[in-house]
Amino acid sequence: MKLSQGVEWAAHCATVLAALPEGAALSAAVLAEYHGVPQPYLAKSLQALSRAGIVTSAQGRGGGYRLARPAEQVTLLDVVTAVEGPEQAFRCAEIRRNAPHASPEACYSSPCAIAASMWTAEQAWRDSLATVTMASLASHVRDVVPADVGERNRAWIAARSGRHP
Amino acid sequence: MKLSQGVEWAAHCATVLAALPEGAALSAAVLAEYHGVPQPYLAKSLQALSRAGIVTSAQGRGGGYRLARPAEQVTLLDVVTAVEGPEQAFRCAEIRRNAPHASPEACYSSPCAIAASMWTAEQAWRDSLATVTMASLASHVRDVVPADVGERNRAWIAARSGRHP
Repeated sequence: MKLSQGVEWAAHCATVLAALPEGAALSAAVLAEYHGVPQPYLAKSLQALSRAGIVTSAQGRGGGYRLARPAEQVTLLDVVTAVEGPEQAFRCAEIRRNAPHASPEACYSSPCAIAASMWTAEQAWRDSLATVTMASLASHVRDVVPADVGERNRAWIAARSGRHP
Repeated sequence: MKLSQGVEWAAHCATVLAALPEGAALSAAVLAEYHGVPQPYLAKSLQALSRAGIVTSAQGRGGGYRLARPAEQVTLLDVVTAVEGPEQAFRCAEIRRNAPHASPEACYSSPCAIAASMWTAEQAWRDSLATVTMASLASHVRDVVPADVGERNRAWIAARSGRHP
């Protein structure tokens, strides 16, 4: 089981966008340069965030991406789901039905205990991701990065940020 | 994110083995026929369970697989880990280090908040899987399958089971 690299990239981008001043926006090129990742691949992650309504983008000079709603309302679960899709990791092929002697159809109306247990565990994973917001991640970064380094990175970003109308 | 089909197969096989009488064993061919899955692929799942010490096998006529320890001591986490490996689903490439202005090395000694949150969620998933034992799954199957159907399937299995010395 492996999450795509796009999850890491999207989460970092959303965290950076969460720390932007009101109205500011960053292009895919700036986000790619900031994170040292290839822009064509990062663009896919940003498009996934956009399709999920997590970011909005404005085209052209002075445009770019910003969060579509307050950073307190964007969770890590939102970001992971945007990139990975909403499907369960465990897919039940109902092989219990293949036993030499089948049960009456009604017995299969509730999920197989194995599938149910797998999905309960996935829900625990989702519940945990849902407790983490982009606001909390951005606040954590601000707390742990030395003040002068944070200031210089914010200045680097400010010099390259656009502004939504 | 997707779990391999081998997880479902291995979990069903371990559940069936959990329900065997003391000393009985089932070959890969019988397990494949019971579950209606292709034996060459199922063999990989069974080998994964064997490598992880969840099942033991005896070769030859009358041999086969059985659980290596009491069914109360084999969890769904054990089975999933045997098939999928122990690696985290989220792999941190430490892209925080790529920011235009880097922090002093010591600042990177604790994990990135994004990675830490992802791994906390995976731990919640593992903790949930660890609460489910093969004994509880086998007991659940016995409870929900109609008595006559269960009896016929157990007879089917008994007619094809080997016995470890």
